[in-house]
Amino acid sequence: MLARLEIETPSWGYGDSGTRFATFPQAGRPRNAFERVDDAAEVHRLTAAAPAVALHFPWDQVDDLAALRAHIEARGLRVGAVNPNLFQELDYKLGSVANPDPVVRGRAVAHLLECVEIATALGSTAQSLWLADGTNYAGQDDLRARRERVLECLAEVYAALPPEQELLLEYKPFEPAFYATDVADWGSALLFCQKLGERAAVLVDFGHHLQGANIEQIVAILAAEGRLGGFHFNNRKYADDDLIVGSVNPFELFSVFVELGTELPRLTIDQAHNVEAKVEAMTLSVVNVQDAYAKALLVDRDALAAAQAEGDVLGAHEQLLEAFRCDVRELCGRARVAAGGAADPVAALRESGYVERIARERGEAAPVSAGWNA
Amino acid sequence: MLARLEIETPSWGYGDSGTRFATFPQAGRPRNAFERVDDAAEVHRLTAAAPAVALHFPWDQVDDLAALRAHIEARGLRVGAVNPNLFQELDYKLGSVANPDPVVRGRAVAHLLECVEIATALGSTAQSLWLADGTNYAGQDDLRARRERVLECLAEVYAALPPEQELLLEYKPFEPAFYATDVADWGSALLFCQKLGERAAVLVDFGHHLQGANIEQIVAILAAEGRLGGFHFNNRKYADDDLIVGSVNPFELFSVFVELGTELPRLTIDQAHNVEAKVEAMTLSVVNVQDAYAKALLVDRDALAAAQAEGDVLGAHEQLLEAFRCDVRELCGRARVAAGGAADPVAALRESGYVERIARERGEAAPVSAGWNA
Amino acid sequence: MLARLEIETPSWGYGDSGTRFATFPQAGRPRNAFERVDDAAEVHRLTAAAPAVALHFPWDQVDDLAALRAHIEARGLRVGAVNPNLFQELDYKLGSVANPDPVVRGRAVAHLLECVEIATALGSTAQSLWLADGTNYAGQDDLRARRERVLECLAEVYAALPPEQELLLEYKPFEPAFYATDVADWGSALLFCQKLGERAAVLVDFGHHLQGANIEQIVAILAAEGRLGGFHFNNRKYADDDLIVGSVNPFELFSVFVELGTELPRLTIDQAHNVEAKVEAMTLSVVNVQDAYAKALLVDRDALAAAQAEGDVLGAHEQLLEAFRCDVRELCGRARVAAGGAADPVAALRESGYVERIARERGEAAPVSAGWNA
Amino acid sequence: MLARLEIETPSWGYGDSGTRFATFPQAGRPRNAFERVDDAAEVHRLTAAAPAVALHFPWDQVDDLAALRAHIEARGLRVGAVNPNLFQELDYKLGSVANPDPVVRGRAVAHLLECVEIATALGSTAQSLWLADGTNYAGQDDLRARRERVLECLAEVYAALPPEQELLLEYKPFEPAFYATDVADWGSALLFCQKLGERAAVLVDFGHHLQGANIEQIVAILAAEGRLGGFHFNNRKYADDDLIVGSVNPFELFSVFVELGTELPRLTIDQAHNVEAKVEAMTLSVVNVQDAYAKALLVDRDALAAAQAEGDVLGAHEQLLEAFRCDVRELCGRARVAAGGAADPVAALRESGYVERIARERGEAAPVSAGWNA
Repeated sequence: MLARLEIETPSWGYGDSGTRFATFPQAGRPRNAFERVDDAAEVHRLTAAAPAVALHFPWDQVDDLAALRAHIEARGLRVGAVNPNLFQELDYKLGSVANPDPVVRGRAVAHLLECVEIATALGSTAQSLWLADGTNYAGQDDLRARRERVLECLAEVYAALPPEQELLLEYKPFEPAFYATDVADWGSALLFCQKLGERAAVLVDFGHHLQGANIEQIVAILAAEGRLGGFHFNNRKYADDDLIVGSVNPFELFSVFVELGTELPRLTIDQAHNVEAKVEAMTLSVVNVQDAYAKALLVDRDALAAAQAEGDVLGAHEQLLEAFRCDVRELCGRARVAAGGAADPVAALRESGYVERIARERGEAAPVSAGWNA
Repeated sequence: MLARLEIETPSWGYGDSGTRFATFPQAGRPRNAFERVDDAAEVHRLTAAAPAVALHFPWDQVDDLAALRAHIEARGLRVGAVNPNLFQELDYKLGSVANPDPVVRGRAVAHLLECVEIATALGSTAQSLWLADGTNYAGQDDLRARRERVLECLAEVYAALPPEQELLLEYKPFEPAFYATDVADWGSALLFCQKLGERAAVLVDFGHHLQGANIEQIVAILAAEGRLGGFHFNNRKYADDDLIVGSVNPFELFSVFVELGTELPRLTIDQAHNVEAKVEAMTLSVVNVQDAYAKALLVDRDALAAAQAEGDVLGAHEQLLEAFRCDVRELCGRARVAAGGAADPVAALRESGYVERIARERGEAAPVSAGWNA
Repeated sequence: MLARLEIETPSWGYGDSGTRFATFPQAGRPRNAFERVDDAAEVHRLTAAAPAVALHFPWDQVDDLAALRAHIEARGLRVGAVNPNLFQELDYKLGSVANPDPVVRGRAVAHLLECVEIATALGSTAQSLWLADGTNYAGQDDLRARRERVLECLAEVYAALPPEQELLLEYKPFEPAFYATDVADWGSALLFCQKLGERAAVLVDFGHHLQGANIEQIVAILAAEGRLGGFHFNNRKYADDDLIVGSVNPFELFSVFVELGTELPRLTIDQAHNVEAKVEAMTLSVVNVQDAYAKALLVDRDALAAAQAEGDVLGAHEQLLEAFRCDVRELCGRARVAAGGAADPVAALRESGYVERIARERGEAAPVSAGWNA
Repeated sequence: MLARLEIETPSWGYGDSGTRFATFPQAGRPRNAFERVDDAAEVHRLTAAAPAVALHFPWDQVDDLAALRAHIEARGLRVGAVNPNLFQELDYKLGSVANPDPVVRGRAVAHLLECVEIATALGSTAQSLWLADGTNYAGQDDLRARRERVLECLAEVYAALPPEQELLLEYKPFEPAFYATDVADWGSALLFCQKLGERAAVLVDFGHHLQGANIEQIVAILAAEGRLGGFHFNNRKYADDDLIVGSVNPFELFSVFVELGTELPRLTIDQAHNVEAKVEAMTLSVVNVQDAYAKALLVDRDALAAAQAEGDVLGAHEQLLEAFRCDVRELCGRARVAAGGAADPVAALRESGYVERIARERGEAAPVSAGWNA
């Protein structure tokens, strides 16, 4: 069962990331999409559980998509979801598909349609869409009109999807918009998906919730409705911190896997490694997910169901505790080795010299950049 | 337009309320449903905007419903929503309609069906349902099975509703359940309503959100979907504090009314006046709502739409600010007097001697009670 | 080292507790302080790590304190902290030591002084003080004047403390006060302690923080300042949920113990077992604390310090992960058995028949009570 | 009294700002410190209440400080606080004054000492220090050691302060650090100030609190302790959103001014105008502050104190409501005109052509930049 776990690592997770205050460049940062794929392949080599790489456009734009696809496959990977980018053009300052200006909306739709074609060319089976659209002040724009605009644009894109592609719609309560985000919560995302069609589903990013939200319950509802499209794994203590999955509350990650059982949707890592070593951070992230999944598989489902049926509150809860308390490092290590990976991927990475090699080969880091500058 | 505003005050808001630590009894506390109606009538006499009284069963249970209805109408009021109670029986310790035990669920459904009959007898047009159901620990119960049980029970009740009654379903993220509440957010409530039928709608309680939730946006979505059933007015700074509506952030209350425009759903106050004078608190609450609604009516909608269309962020926002900054006390006072109320309801209450009179007539306060005692 | 762990369980944790909505009585609820001590002794018998029982007055008031002390010692326990109660009298509706009325403040001080004498009689070495004082509305009272009143009252109590007693001051951001709590955060509590004297220290309750607060960092600061008086253990996902310690985020509990090292302050459990079996809940709580402490002891401190010194972000973090991932159930079980407890305390409790016996002997449960009733 | 209000506007608030996702450049963005001063002068010309400009170094670094000071004074302004920058150098990736590397700490101290000299040269009377220092993962660094390092560095800087300069220390719970920020809350900041000396005081930024924090209570405590150094005005709904002060909850801003009374500390605006017109946003911000302060001056302090003394909860609260409900636009307009400003500063700005002129004169906007890029 453990071998079923397949995680997509994000090409953008190998590049530099930061906050509005500063982005600290790292040595060995990949210079293009091909090198980002190389890093993803290294993570898969070590963990044997990261066989796909999610791409982001135009960040991963190349002249020859076929060459990129060939490179990915040559590295033993497949293409994961395609992620369009609708937040880094001046036109999108007041929104993309929710923008009051129809010209801007048209431009946004054109990019989305282009991504459908890119996905087709690459053999990807999903558009994974996060909208940064929203407003910063009460009254800034008409909330209902914005919602209608979003729906109209998404419907146009959905209609263009080939049958093998699905549309994953992500929600997020705030940032970069600080008053009202147009797809703010799972309910908002689900309503759009219901109107679009059966191949539209909701993507759950761990950091995209208000404080206290019960993520495993959201997962349960979406799964029951047949609309759980997948995850963006990360972790947070405060806002959308994009830390390593499982680093803040590993019991929450475990609880999500308990809810999923063995029916796993698309699982993608989406993190920002601002201060930690990037390839190691991604490797550790995959290990953390394997750890949580392995523990969830150890839950005695019959005993759990029996205790639940009897209203034995603690008896049921303790079934989860018992599984969570197990040390699954050796179990996971054996599974990884059996699948061609390393028993201890982080240690193997540190011993491999990979990080030193890319630092040497890829040259100097970029200067510090920032979103806030006078 | 201001005269259109009609608020339901809650019979339970005139009784004692507290926290788990203590409920401090107040002098003049009504001894039965009839006296609670008397207090509601006093609030309407002063404000001319609270013509309905929402009831709670079995708290407002009387031997003769016809007599209660006659009393309500004799006081110049009408019956508002009927609120069933599914959280104060030992059977409901692990839930009511979500309880793993079918016997308990049956009991809960029986109470709900009884409330439908009560509403018919009283001429009420709505069941207003809040479920305290939920779990306190991961694994305690199966989240999906609980959801199916809730739906099955609600469907049975919905089927029994006479055509003039609607079912309002409230959501709440936590308290009394502290791990997973079965109807935790507006999305959860809306999914149930979609499955039940057209006369099921979502009720928005201001205090039933996680920190940061944008209530006016939720209102916009529910209204656009035709599923905004109404409000429970109150305010909070922390959790479900049940303070006086508009006392923490009056601009938020105003923003909700800006979103509603002149299409007002059922508006009910639901507060817990733990330390403040109850009748005065209710009177002030109605005044705060009138104030917010009056300001919202002053928004220059054409100018707002024009600024929004141009992407004039601050020009649009300033339209709201201009209306909010107006002093509408005199305007509201005139409207109240024209409708038979008082220019300054709080001052009028203080001068009327009503509070002193009920303290005299209704006798001694009860002892302090508490939810936490060794 | 594991044997050093000594936890106080709270007498009030064996009685019934609930929310403002309902308190569901449990069979076997102890009828008096002596029976609460019996339950505490059972938890210590099973865990061998709960040798003290914290008391609450007037809840644990008895005619003969010497008899209570003798009973406690006969059960193999000692008296933990004494907890005064300043929130369940009608006089305290607007506060106790912060009340604008000097008569009420005098009454509060008198109770606190009485508790000092009680502690002396019982051999307790700490007053553990939580103040429910606060306001519900902006302007309700003068925040600075309230603070001065609190200080004046506490200074009077501090002056009366015998040298073997310390004053632990707890903070809490909200509930039962919903606008401003007079001792709302650790900074507020610390300022009072600084002004009182060296035997005043801050007590950290896990549930008494705003969402996102970093508890282990607060612990680090208070310890560095020599003002960490102890803990009230519990866990929460939302507000002050008072769930079983370690049940929401066991990694956070572990991180607090990593911060403490082997210098453990007073450790007390303070929970409300509203729906779960009480004696089992307390037993599981002690086990959870043992588990977290045992894992913290496994951290390789030298390797951690080395990685920190090198700025090896993930290398340092992974030292914590490695320890946390260990399965310490057997290790803890052996330590418990060596100290006279059970290898698996929860299983031993279930097999012992203790719960059935007290249900039989102590008779019928009380009726449901609630803080909110019309 | 209204004329006493003097606000510092921030030079960096006239430049471009954004989020990690994108910084959208605006036309007319000042090209250097001199032009930023010109914008500040325009805001003061319109509002007659913004006579100082806070500066940020090295962002406002110029070859000739005397020339900058002369320019500022020629524009009718004075120099506000000097703000050092310790977060945009690669060295500071793991912290500045808390960095484990003493070389980096030395560099940070050198910059701080340079800022003391800059302030002396400019006639500034305050260092306003925000530290971005913190960690992203449990175990990443030793929290207590970091605190000692911070104190050691700040003590060195404090010792170098000339008598006319004070040290304002800002706190912030998270961002850019996402696990533990080294000066996370007011208590942490106050402890540093206590250890540094009498001219160290805490600076309160409205957005730098966890959800639910009662800012006016923090203000009351710091003022009572003689350690309220000043404010960074802005507003937020979610995290540190840096929206226009008063735009989310104007009643909270009013409540802070009620707490302050007429003893105003240093008042500075610190906002990020990501999507709105910058000069207009700053002008509106000053107007919002004037509005809140004017309303606070209208509170009947005697009636308030009387109601508080009587324990008249609502009577006291209503004193605040009465003042807040007043329309002070005309009053503020008259005060501005009397002081040489505009009756309606925002309208006057829109009519003045200033924004169009600077767009013309200062040339093309910069390209979109972002903190997150692959």
